[in-house]
Amino acid sequence: MDKYQHRKGKAAVKIKTPDGQPLKNAKVEVKQTKHRFLFGCADFSVVPFVNNEFSDELREIVQMSFEKFVDLFNFATLPFYWGRFEPVRGKPDTQRLKNAAQWLKERGFVLKGHPLCWHTVTAPWLLELTNEQILDAQLGRIKREVSDFAGLIDMWDVINEVVIMPNFNKYDNGITRICRQYGRIGLVKMTFEAAKEANPKSILLINDYVVSDAYEILIEALLYAGVRFDVIGIQSHMHQGFWGVEKTQEVLERFSRFGIPLHFTEVTLISGKLMPPHIKDLNDYKPENWLSTPECEERQAMEAVLFYKMLFAHPLVEAITWWNFIDTFAWLGAPAGFVTKDGRIKPIYSALYNLIKKEWWTGTQELVTDQSGTLKVSGFMGEYEIAFKDKKASFTIDKPECTVEVTL
Amino acid sequence: MDKYQHRKGKAAVKIKTPDGQPLKNAKVEVKQTKHRFLFGCADFSVVPFVNNEFSDELREIVQMSFEKFVDLFNFATLPFYWGRFEPVRGKPDTQRLKNAAQWLKERGFVLKGHPLCWHTVTAPWLLELTNEQILDAQLGRIKREVSDFAGLIDMWDVINEVVIMPNFNKYDNGITRICRQYGRIGLVKMTFEAAKEANPKSILLINDYVVSDAYEILIEALLYAGVRFDVIGIQSHMHQGFWGVEKTQEVLERFSRFGIPLHFTEVTLISGKLMPPHIKDLNDYKPENWLSTPECEERQAMEAVLFYKMLFAHPLVEAITWWNFIDTFAWLGAPAGFVTKDGRIKPIYSALYNLIKKEWWTGTQELVTDQSGTLKVSGFMGEYEIAFKDKKASFTIDKPECTVEVTL
Repeated sequence: MDKYQHRKGKAAVKIKTPDGQPLKNAKVEVKQTKHRFLFGCADFSVVPFVNNEFSDELREIVQMSFEKFVDLFNFATLPFYWGRFEPVRGKPDTQRLKNAAQWLKERGFVLKGHPLCWHTVTAPWLLELTNEQILDAQLGRIKREVSDFAGLIDMWDVINEVVIMPNFNKYDNGITRICRQYGRIGLVKMTFEAAKEANPKSILLINDYVVSDAYEILIEALLYAGVRFDVIGIQSHMHQGFWGVEKTQEVLERFSRFGIPLHFTEVTLISGKLMPPHIKDLNDYKPENWLSTPECEERQAMEAVLFYKMLFAHPLVEAITWWNFIDTFAWLGAPAGFVTKDGRIKPIYSALYNLIKKEWWTGTQELVTDQSGTLKVSGFMGEYEIAFKDKKASFTIDKPECTVEVTL
Repeated sequence: MDKYQHRKGKAAVKIKTPDGQPLKNAKVEVKQTKHRFLFGCADFSVVPFVNNEFSDELREIVQMSFEKFVDLFNFATLPFYWGRFEPVRGKPDTQRLKNAAQWLKERGFVLKGHPLCWHTVTAPWLLELTNEQILDAQLGRIKREVSDFAGLIDMWDVINEVVIMPNFNKYDNGITRICRQYGRIGLVKMTFEAAKEANPKSILLINDYVVSDAYEILIEALLYAGVRFDVIGIQSHMHQGFWGVEKTQEVLERFSRFGIPLHFTEVTLISGKLMPPHIKDLNDYKPENWLSTPECEERQAMEAVLFYKMLFAHPLVEAITWWNFIDTFAWLGAPAGFVTKDGRIKPIYSALYNLIKKEWWTGTQELVTDQSGTLKVSGFMGEYEIAFKDKKASFTIDKPECTVEVTL
């Protein structure tokens, strides 16, 4: 049995010439050009990079890194942390983000904005408002970003970490206040309705790092309450060690029970010393210099391959996003990226490249059309290019069986 | 400030003589006879004891124990584990339970049945049924027990441990099956509706050992879904050590947010060596002989006093039930009771007796009625006896301020 069967499809490609005749008995070349599956990464340095804010050596490292980034991924997460996006009320950072989104879109990326509602890094000025005003500002903010970016960004992490949101007590913040007042389910419902209203075509995620019963019950409750969301987002920041096969399977099993697509939204496996297990909030760990070492880089690569294989083999998983590409900009200063601080590419890059662009990629095939000008193409779902002499056309395989027509 | 103010009330007691005249300037004695707060215990040996199934030395120990039990508590939990109550379909153990319930009721006890729906110790014959048939049997079972015992038992733990119910995988069982099929919220809704229908006056609890976000979210979800329940039941089996002040406060704070009464339904603090912290499912720990020791008995008493004081001080807590009274019959064989296997009363008994029947008890007061035959009685809420010469009457204080009339 092929454990990746659900990732593949067969297309009957009917080829016609410009005058409408079937292109009979012709030798053509077919190759995949893009994955349907979303292989993603979040590296927020793309924003200053695209906006030309880096200089000298750092600029060179970032430039080289994003070339590699573009070669490997087809999906990117862009930062919309409210406290950074709109530190002064009424002055959102829309243009810089649009520039970054445009740059990535031109390179074929699907884009996701993260997050629209979260208690961390939220706007500090919310604290001066009443709860009713905070809610208004939150829903207005959602509608503004989702409409401003429609067409560029049509996928959003609408609400982040709502499981702990009302109990978050490290510091006072506007979002915890309204989550307490309106309840988790009430707040989720309102934020998703606002986003859907602003862009009815958008794909909307709920996202959490809690993978226990608590998140599962929240999802059950949202479905029971008729709250519509498109994707269950699951974080997996494994700074304290790889989940391993058993936990990964267990999480997949529990969250697939709803029959809703799963995105692994924030994957971290580090190439350095693991964070000690006694740390409960990852933010509390602050080593002076968190080194990437050759042994740990091998471990990172091996674990990543195993993790990606398990997720790719599961029919409900539709996206995997690595959390940060360049160590210089990685969350918590962890050696979590594919590129070290001094610009060296770690083994994980070629390990995942071998999966994504080789093992799980349908390379060039030479095929011959039949008497009716038709040929059968089998391969991983995604976009394909078909070439006959100097002519090219494209088609998509997005179902187990499909029929497409192209003109060459 | 009096931290037990919410437990107390003031009654203006208007006393009349049988001919309807006010009993002026009379010296009367007033004393509390019963707590409004439910100080409870679960010791299921009450069933064989009341049904005369013990003999010899054990009978003596149990007899002595239940005398102590009746002196201290006003609330008891009776066992309705389906697998034991109806091991053969159609042959429920109704009569033995009725005998026990009657015996306790005659001694002034409020009674609760536990549990009506649970995946553990459930009826093994459910495994031969379809999910639809299991659900029918479950709802029928609830209606049968709740109506059969109405008037004797008007309080029920309707569903137990539903947080883990669909994920429970130690062994296959009918209840996990239907919880997976109908969902936690769906199953809770149906079981509570069945119980309420069978006895509209009953007080219905949801009960869980999970005190994390998961249970909190489930409660939020049930309220959002309009599922009606009367009490949030919180287990606290502290075989691995006392929660301490901080965790106790944190649990109280989180679960009091709903404004729904809280019952601490299953309190365990042991008088022996603690269970090691690495044990996840308490059932997995099976020491050969779990001794009660003098040092640990002192610890048990001190921790119990602290725990009871914290719970009694919280306005939403309405009941505390100790989990097992006699070590011989205690869950897991733990030294969790107030009475050792050889019939010795542990220090916890007098420690809690001092709280329940002394510190939190309004003893005999000599008072004098005024010109209108009225006197003011202040005290802990509950039932009172008032005596004038050889005449007696009773009244209840169940509000901060109330007016009652008695005839003496």
